[in-house]
Amino acid sequence: MTRHALAATQLACWLATAPLAYAAGELPSWNDGQAKQAITAFVAKVTKPGTPDFVPVAARIAVFDNDGTLWAEQPLYFQFLFAIDRIKALSSEHPEWKDQEPFASLLRGDLKATLAGGEHALMEVMAVTHSNLTTEEFEGIVKNWLATAKHPKTGRPYTQMAYQPMLELLAYLRANGFKTFIVSGGGIEFMRAFAEKTYGVPPEQVIGSSGKTKFELRDGKPVLVKLPEINFIDDKTGKPIGINEHIGRRPIAAFGNSDGDLQMLQWTAAGPDARFCLYVHHTDAEREWAYDHPSHIGQLDKGLDEAAAKGWTVASMKDDWKRIFRFEK
Amino acid sequence: MTRHALAATQLACWLATAPLAYAAGELPSWNDGQAKQAITAFVAKVTKPGTPDFVPVAARIAVFDNDGTLWAEQPLYFQFLFAIDRIKALSSEHPEWKDQEPFASLLRGDLKATLAGGEHALMEVMAVTHSNLTTEEFEGIVKNWLATAKHPKTGRPYTQMAYQPMLELLAYLRANGFKTFIVSGGGIEFMRAFAEKTYGVPPEQVIGSSGKTKFELRDGKPVLVKLPEINFIDDKTGKPIGINEHIGRRPIAAFGNSDGDLQMLQWTAAGPDARFCLYVHHTDAEREWAYDHPSHIGQLDKGLDEAAAKGWTVASMKDDWKRIFRFEK
Repeated sequence: MTRHALAATQLACWLATAPLAYAAGELPSWNDGQAKQAITAFVAKVTKPGTPDFVPVAARIAVFDNDGTLWAEQPLYFQFLFAIDRIKALSSEHPEWKDQEPFASLLRGDLKATLAGGEHALMEVMAVTHSNLTTEEFEGIVKNWLATAKHPKTGRPYTQMAYQPMLELLAYLRANGFKTFIVSGGGIEFMRAFAEKTYGVPPEQVIGSSGKTKFELRDGKPVLVKLPEINFIDDKTGKPIGINEHIGRRPIAAFGNSDGDLQMLQWTAAGPDARFCLYVHHTDAEREWAYDHPSHIGQLDKGLDEAAAKGWTVASMKDDWKRIFRFEK
Repeated sequence: MTRHALAATQLACWLATAPLAYAAGELPSWNDGQAKQAITAFVAKVTKPGTPDFVPVAARIAVFDNDGTLWAEQPLYFQFLFAIDRIKALSSEHPEWKDQEPFASLLRGDLKATLAGGEHALMEVMAVTHSNLTTEEFEGIVKNWLATAKHPKTGRPYTQMAYQPMLELLAYLRANGFKTFIVSGGGIEFMRAFAEKTYGVPPEQVIGSSGKTKFELRDGKPVLVKLPEINFIDDKTGKPIGINEHIGRRPIAAFGNSDGDLQMLQWTAAGPDARFCLYVHHTDAEREWAYDHPSHIGQLDKGLDEAAAKGWTVASMKDDWKRIFRFEK
């Protein structure tokens, strides 16, 4: 091969295979503010070979909370709305629920009374709706719900409640050689039912809360049965524990929206080299919701203080995002 | 670019990036027997686009047991030999161990008496040697041990006790677009200390047994402390449970060597499409060890029967492997 042809080959290969930093069109739904600048500056820094901050591809691990960070979480966690729909669907097989809390209030549509039952009531609703099924049956039920259920405020399928700027951010990081993981308090099997299609995150990169399962042979065919027993709660201090258990190395970038993500951001930030931590701040009552402290869901209080003290990036949905949902005009 | 240069470019790119099926030199340490033929036929089948058995890259998940499948496990699991060395190293800080079982026998070098203490004794040795350390401290201790300790029979570092044919098989599968995972009864953090360097398997693709950890802030710096409490045992029915928890989809190929791997092979084989299951059979007393049933370690009994009944591949180390360890002449 001539020297010229070789150079052409190298260029063509590079164009075909290099994880290109997005040029002009990068992160199109982000305004050109401080948050976007901080993101692109960090990515430029860790992907430039031969510099002290360069991070090899294998170590480019980025972790994302799900509820309130990648998709909305109001008026209630979507997985809890799924559980409510499931209680309604199962109620004909359970006539006794009409007189039994927390199901009775829930079937009357009195969510406040259900939630008044506290953690115990929530756990009972989750246990009844998320167990005594094989893992395959559960996946089918979740996928069917996602294909048919509509968000109470927008009337859109729940997967359309994903944040467009965050979808772009996931793609942008992957285009720059990052492996993107979800690390969420949400159910690991619930999220896996849509994470690959909605976020481009494969099941093995989804970490979440889980129930115990039991291996059984049914007519010689092995199945895993979901038990009404907690295995792991992937929230607060559980997030670094889950990251250690599933990933086994420290992320270099972490994205969250609440105090439940604080320990994940702390764990990420404590690494020796360049790190990036970002809080999504719900500041847009018109296009989404505005809440931080206090809030019945996704409370962000200590996290905001720590972000200010440590120089983490805070992205304001109102100011930093051109649009929030893809379906917006 | 001329047409000729374009073709050259395409060829060069293809050579640089395509997951090539190994041609002439594929699996050089495997004899041309039934086992090698079964492996290459399966890989050819699932990687050929447009055929009914084609599997897209994302679903090409292969799972490997570690002890006795990827590296040796005699005279005792290497992790237990690590624990023994660690007890010796810690004994000066624990004068009381001289009169306290199971440590007393172990320090006298009487392994039989230690093992006579049964599961309880083993658990105590593991708890003492694997906890009250941060995850980072533990990783450093394991890496230091691997760099210095020698196998009692061969005098080689333990990582040289990896099976050369299996290292080739891991590389061959990855070259054909497979994602290779370890699913082992061994400790997840113990294996992660060498899996990337020895096997090319990154930490996030290592699944194993684990202890609980606790998140703490020490002088404002977050650490994870290993507790003397079992979190998960990744053996027998635990293997499909661990696969479901960590990978979230069913493997299409599984490799093991003992009855502890049987449920993992059953779970893999039960998928709807083309599947591949292989048992490594320890048949070579001269170059390695010969054992199946009965055995104090790595017993293979029910697994051999089921392999015969279901047509799984059994690779005989004596007949199918040209060489077992890389250091052999």
